[in-house]
Amino acid sequence: MRTLIRNIGRLYLVPPGPVRAPQLGDVPILRDAAVCIDDERIAWFGRDSNRPPDPVDAELDANGQAVVPGFVDCHTHLLFAGTREGEFVDRIRGKTYVQILEAGGGIHVSVDAVRRASETELVGLGRDRLRRMLAAGTTTAEVKSGYGLSPEDELKMLRAIRRLSGEQPVELVATYLAAHTVPRAYADRAEAYLAAVTADDVLERIYRDDLAEFADVFCERGAFTPAQAERFLRECERHGLRPKLHAEQITHSGATRLGVALNAVSVDHLEELDDEDIAALRGSATIPVLLPGCNFFLNARPAPARRMIDAGLPVALATDCNPGSSMIESMPLILSIACTLLRMTPVEALVAATANAAAAINRADRIGAIATGHQADLLLLDVPNVERLAYDVGRNAVRTVLKRGRVVHQA
Amino acid sequence: MRTLIRNIGRLYLVPPGPVRAPQLGDVPILRDAAVCIDDERIAWFGRDSNRPPDPVDAELDANGQAVVPGFVDCHTHLLFAGTREGEFVDRIRGKTYVQILEAGGGIHVSVDAVRRASETELVGLGRDRLRRMLAAGTTTAEVKSGYGLSPEDELKMLRAIRRLSGEQPVELVATYLAAHTVPRAYADRAEAYLAAVTADDVLERIYRDDLAEFADVFCERGAFTPAQAERFLRECERHGLRPKLHAEQITHSGATRLGVALNAVSVDHLEELDDEDIAALRGSATIPVLLPGCNFFLNARPAPARRMIDAGLPVALATDCNPGSSMIESMPLILSIACTLLRMTPVEALVAATANAAAAINRADRIGAIATGHQADLLLLDVPNVERLAYDVGRNAVRTVLKRGRVVHQA
Repeated sequence: MRTLIRNIGRLYLVPPGPVRAPQLGDVPILRDAAVCIDDERIAWFGRDSNRPPDPVDAELDANGQAVVPGFVDCHTHLLFAGTREGEFVDRIRGKTYVQILEAGGGIHVSVDAVRRASETELVGLGRDRLRRMLAAGTTTAEVKSGYGLSPEDELKMLRAIRRLSGEQPVELVATYLAAHTVPRAYADRAEAYLAAVTADDVLERIYRDDLAEFADVFCERGAFTPAQAERFLRECERHGLRPKLHAEQITHSGATRLGVALNAVSVDHLEELDDEDIAALRGSATIPVLLPGCNFFLNARPAPARRMIDAGLPVALATDCNPGSSMIESMPLILSIACTLLRMTPVEALVAATANAAAAINRADRIGAIATGHQADLLLLDVPNVERLAYDVGRNAVRTVLKRGRVVHQA
Repeated sequence: MRTLIRNIGRLYLVPPGPVRAPQLGDVPILRDAAVCIDDERIAWFGRDSNRPPDPVDAELDANGQAVVPGFVDCHTHLLFAGTREGEFVDRIRGKTYVQILEAGGGIHVSVDAVRRASETELVGLGRDRLRRMLAAGTTTAEVKSGYGLSPEDELKMLRAIRRLSGEQPVELVATYLAAHTVPRAYADRAEAYLAAVTADDVLERIYRDDLAEFADVFCERGAFTPAQAERFLRECERHGLRPKLHAEQITHSGATRLGVALNAVSVDHLEELDDEDIAALRGSATIPVLLPGCNFFLNARPAPARRMIDAGLPVALATDCNPGSSMIESMPLILSIACTLLRMTPVEALVAATANAAAAINRADRIGAIATGHQADLLLLDVPNVERLAYDVGRNAVRTVLKRGRVVHQA
């Protein structure tokens, strides 16, 4: 199957991640371009007038508008049951995160709902959400467990993610986030809980059935200490799960430097990042993932994105889609929020949401870029440039989505 | 034509505006409800089980979800040509509003583009925008001129609004905003410019052809002083145009108290509102309109919404849709931003975007409420409550839109 995309006004030649400043904000743009796809991969791109003369099976017309790589949403909790709009209102009325948690709200509400839901119900809920995300241009999504908080419920979540992965177009990457918080049954017994979810038979099952690729931990006051996080991640890594961390979101815990020490694939959130953390990240292969949807949703201080970019860090962006702190599914909306709240330029936000996000899930050699041999995950926009994509806040400019060279969504 | 909406899980009985606290945040909700529409108007609403036995021509099933009044977007500049994404990026890079203006950017870019566009081109641009706004639940929109800045170009804009008004479902209300800024040709001659756009023949033409209902002025340092604003509004009022003001957006000018003194139908923006202004508004019939899209877009300090609500003011909400400071078309997104940035509850935001917004364009007796005899402008949502509408940020929960009793959009 050979497909040709013609009449591209601006083809954003996003290079494979990790991409740092100055390239981060200044990717080459090819005018009047075409892309040739052989089966699943980009075979050629260049000037439309120079395209190869070989016959093609399908031709798509970009109408002179922009083409970019599909979005890689590299940090989501999109598999959940129930919603938490009551808590959203409580917060508006002045309640804090901790007060909501202590009143029996917060994450435990989602945990109860996920435990009650069957695997098939979870698959149905995820399917609806992924359909909307695909329509907004997400072609790959990382999905975390973390609302089961028991070996069997965490495994149920991971199995649901694997089922979803096979039955719809968005490529899914599973992360084992059993260390999301300490479940109520283990109050004050975090160590015993971590022992249960890192028991050899649990981790072996994950490995044997290929249920996850990464392990993740919420390293935060009230959740897990750096020492606990380290033990959890090391246990998981012994069974083939590479580390990720929720780091420096509400308080500064040192999780970023722990992540660097463990050669984590990413550290995520980073609202309270300090200069020493930035220096540590600079010398590492760990990708810093920013989640500004969360800052918008909670009306909370954002991460120091500009300082990070100026220091040469290859920042990535994701939705953090979850029912408590970022009920946002749309990557274009995240690009807009990154521009207004983090003061990232639209091109920086594009690269952060594609090439660098791919690096944050260890796939930079295959997705997130416009490069020959890369997977043909592409978006045809109905705007001429990515500035318009970010600037037209809340409008979905994604017209056609290709995943592995096939049209999987058309607006 | 008689239409029945059945199986409404929650019917939000928004009362006619202006609505003040405590009702603002606490509207009655009718469970298991139905609404009966006779031609254009709400004829009956109540329990589904008590609905009148009369035969109906059409029946709509709300599927147990929520029904609310159509959104009234009471402050927009939606009729414009060109876009200003370059300026959006300049601002991210640290340029100020004034620097952008002095470099030849800002509003003058839109003025040049609108002057170059034909009336028919403007109608086409407005049509596309209104189609998307309707799909997001806007059933009535105020539209300002203000990018013509000459008698002939301002009249061209008003004629385009009138044409759009007749050819698509969103009800339009036109405002004469010739005093948007001083055009370049009149630099330092604001008085002469105002004399030109308030010449008797211009205002008589507007009156005779019924081209506008309100007059509006941008009272701000660098635009018009309160004294100039007053003269402009009084001239316009002599020809039947009721006053509105852009007030206290960037600096405190006293425009709010001027608005109260002139019995303006609304004062809009109000980021720099002070306690004396709040006291003045409390004793008046002038509606304070908040535009949080602008605060999101510019990452700028929002209006003191909570203080205003707690003081008993009937605040309204609108998109301020415009290419410079709020490129946002969606009222549901404005509700979300009002919740996160202004700390309004979803119900307060709903009432502000319907009943109070209707009051801000002098239509509270006819639209924005669920009341018998009111126009049947209604939204069937695919969520059970308005909390979900605001909480699901960026997702369009509007499934069916009725305007004057007819289905005009179906998702």
